[in-house]
Amino acid sequence: MASAKTQPARGMRDFLPADVRKREYVIGVIKEVYERYGFEPLETPAVENIETLMGKYGEEGNQLIFKILKRGEHEKTGEADLALRYDLTVPLARVVAQYQNELPKFFKRYQIQPVWRADRPARGRFREFYQCDVDVLGSKSMVVEAELITAASDALVALGFNDFTIRLNHRQLMDANMTEAMIAPENRAHVLGVLDKRDKIGEEGVRNGLSALGVSEDSIRTIFHRLDNRTSLDQTGKAGFAELSVEASTANRQILGGQLRSFNYLPSENPAKVAASHAIFELNKILELTEDTRVARHIRMDPSLARGLSYYTGTIMEINVEGIGSLGGGGRYDNLVGMFLGKDVPACGFSLGLERIIVVMSERKMFPPELISSPADVMVLIWYHKDKDEKMEAARESLSLAQELRSSGLRVDVYPVRNVKVSTQIAYAAKRQFPFVAFVGENERQSGLVSIKDLRSGEQSSLSPAGAIEHIKAGTRKDHAESSPQ
Amino acid sequence: MASAKTQPARGMRDFLPADVRKREYVIGVIKEVYERYGFEPLETPAVENIETLMGKYGEEGNQLIFKILKRGEHEKTGEADLALRYDLTVPLARVVAQYQNELPKFFKRYQIQPVWRADRPARGRFREFYQCDVDVLGSKSMVVEAELITAASDALVALGFNDFTIRLNHRQLMDANMTEAMIAPENRAHVLGVLDKRDKIGEEGVRNGLSALGVSEDSIRTIFHRLDNRTSLDQTGKAGFAELSVEASTANRQILGGQLRSFNYLPSENPAKVAASHAIFELNKILELTEDTRVARHIRMDPSLARGLSYYTGTIMEINVEGIGSLGGGGRYDNLVGMFLGKDVPACGFSLGLERIIVVMSERKMFPPELISSPADVMVLIWYHKDKDEKMEAARESLSLAQELRSSGLRVDVYPVRNVKVSTQIAYAAKRQFPFVAFVGENERQSGLVSIKDLRSGEQSSLSPAGAIEHIKAGTRKDHAESSPQ
Repeated sequence: MASAKTQPARGMRDFLPADVRKREYVIGVIKEVYERYGFEPLETPAVENIETLMGKYGEEGNQLIFKILKRGEHEKTGEADLALRYDLTVPLARVVAQYQNELPKFFKRYQIQPVWRADRPARGRFREFYQCDVDVLGSKSMVVEAELITAASDALVALGFNDFTIRLNHRQLMDANMTEAMIAPENRAHVLGVLDKRDKIGEEGVRNGLSALGVSEDSIRTIFHRLDNRTSLDQTGKAGFAELSVEASTANRQILGGQLRSFNYLPSENPAKVAASHAIFELNKILELTEDTRVARHIRMDPSLARGLSYYTGTIMEINVEGIGSLGGGGRYDNLVGMFLGKDVPACGFSLGLERIIVVMSERKMFPPELISSPADVMVLIWYHKDKDEKMEAARESLSLAQELRSSGLRVDVYPVRNVKVSTQIAYAAKRQFPFVAFVGENERQSGLVSIKDLRSGEQSSLSPAGAIEHIKAGTRKDHAESSPQ
Repeated sequence: MASAKTQPARGMRDFLPADVRKREYVIGVIKEVYERYGFEPLETPAVENIETLMGKYGEEGNQLIFKILKRGEHEKTGEADLALRYDLTVPLARVVAQYQNELPKFFKRYQIQPVWRADRPARGRFREFYQCDVDVLGSKSMVVEAELITAASDALVALGFNDFTIRLNHRQLMDANMTEAMIAPENRAHVLGVLDKRDKIGEEGVRNGLSALGVSEDSIRTIFHRLDNRTSLDQTGKAGFAELSVEASTANRQILGGQLRSFNYLPSENPAKVAASHAIFELNKILELTEDTRVARHIRMDPSLARGLSYYTGTIMEINVEGIGSLGGGGRYDNLVGMFLGKDVPACGFSLGLERIIVVMSERKMFPPELISSPADVMVLIWYHKDKDEKMEAARESLSLAQELRSSGLRVDVYPVRNVKVSTQIAYAAKRQFPFVAFVGENERQSGLVSIKDLRSGEQSSLSPAGAIEHIKAGTRKDHAESSPQ
């Protein structure tokens, strides 16, 4: 018998039960928060027509898209007509264009699905990974930005994160600053890419990267000078997070004021000054709108924030956790839907980095202890008899008992083989960390009782079926509300 | 501005919010039942190495697998190295082989994920659809079969189905009957395929199909004679379902007895007779094991049941609903894991037809009424002011109010634009079927109250924030338990 290769494909992962439970816990918490904000669920196919995706993610994106061969007689052409979803934003734009008459004027959706990218796999980087997006379509108001960062922040808090900052910037402010630093328009996407890596490669790395792009020393100095008044806030130190709303607000206003003043010397109709003023006006609005909410103390205006994606047109945002880096980000993209619909629809979204969140929560032991639990609350054993009819009777009794216990909402496994010694069955249940085993032996059958053995304490009691249910529920400390599928 | 094609790819579907909610409801109910049986969740990647899938689903299967082009410099070869998951059973077999040291001796898993098949799309047939599988690995005992059909049956009952039958047969019994009907071994897979379509094409269709395969008139007569003692049970009529356990059991035993007698004339060492006896022994075990459970009255022994898949080796099963056909099926496949592991592992599984279940539940209006609900419990309006500062203050009040309402577990939307007439905001909320709107007008601001308007009755009341929360909760009749993510 020949055996075949059994690893998952390169860069892909199998999730065994304990992994799935962690992932479902995180997804469940995030969904609940997003539902509380009035976001509605959307799902799109894993497979899109290839022309829907090509050209939307830049040259590098085109290379990383998984392409699907034509089928049947066309297979041998070697051509692709379909491709795997690369993000959740482009499919959203397609959906908004396709169902414009069915969707509400303001479409608020969340979408939590896998995407596929043929990146070189590395630690923490996979070829199949989940994205976890919220977007609001149909409004240019900064109320949208305020709600998005509050929702994403609430989701992280619900998961147990507290030490995070929400960095805000504006693509038009960044653009105006690049104009002032004499960065040629055709070079800006590359410059943004280098700036975006600052947390990873450091200031020296950024300087070298910009030099390599042919940016002059003068320009580099100017851009650092213009983008770097974010530090004034960091000096307040991490410790003050809890009570920092007022300080945060004051510092953020100072940063925006400084940015505005740096364009003062220009005439009022100068395009860079106009763009910067508009951007600062919008960023100020977000500050004002969120001032009375829980999110205020997390906000940090950061003129150096550079999100890589080319489709952003306005605000850009990123959530960072001390010592970890980004757990998510997003921004406004008022032109993307237009590529499908033929007319622009304002849009803004935020994406949480689900895979990163799960890794960090595992490392920091942030999962609730009841998650890393037994496969079920109790294992029903099958009593061992020598007599053939008795054997069958014992198995029937076990299945009936399991049925009764399950009806109460308990999670119940049955030892899946007959004619096995009871001690072997108990050893198996103990190894798999079932908290309890239940069985009907000779004595129990006579008395109509059930024996329940607590495998952690070794304690054993004979109880009525109703008593057994109470005993197991008390001993597993779980919420057995029947109405709540986990 | 050019607009692009916006439909999903052929045979694929977008799920708008109301669709997603239906799907998640069904999946949630099924998961809860499977968890109650001690099944644990497994997830595998959408993409598998192409050699993992090729050759596992027969010649037709090979044609229907979506194949993924090699990337980078190899793209132009037109070759594929990866493929999309075609079912959940082959990946399970791969996983069991790969993680044999981490998985328990008896591995009970459920898996609910999409699969992809390049079938010709038709009504109710899609190229991306969910499978919903439970499998038990590691035991040859009929306790496994008994638990699987009870679990699948409980899942259907939890969804609201009652009028279903669970048809049982055994691949070895079918094989023995085909031997007796002189069907050549190399023809049997095709004959099974024709028999499998009997519910769709009728008896006449089967006769024609078998003739077309070159099966003689004699053989056709013999096979119908051998397989057709299932009807004795149907004569008890559909009406008696509720109290039928005993009658079902008696009829089922008669059928198995008849099957056994039909091999009587053969010598005891005849391979067909040996296989048939073994099959009937196992089927009888399932009857005995389930006799005291809720599932007994649904079971129908059916020697004509022919599940198409070639990897089945023992029991085969199918759940049918009156007037609809199959909602799921499965069977025992003791040799499949061996193709990956190099040694056999006994295995048996059941797959519920999620897509079919959702269609039928929609047609029969079986979804709970609260599912087809508003996007949220309440929409917070932003009061309209002429004064600029007052405008901003009103928006801040609305975001604070939303935060307070959300903290109580309510689902709260905020009208996402400022400077809009209140009547326009209310009209939008009414159109979208929000049950309530909440707002802080001039009077409310003075008194510290919140106005809540019931958009269904038109009633309006001014309440404290706590009173508003109670009022909305009472009016939306929802379970707002904060601990249960939906």
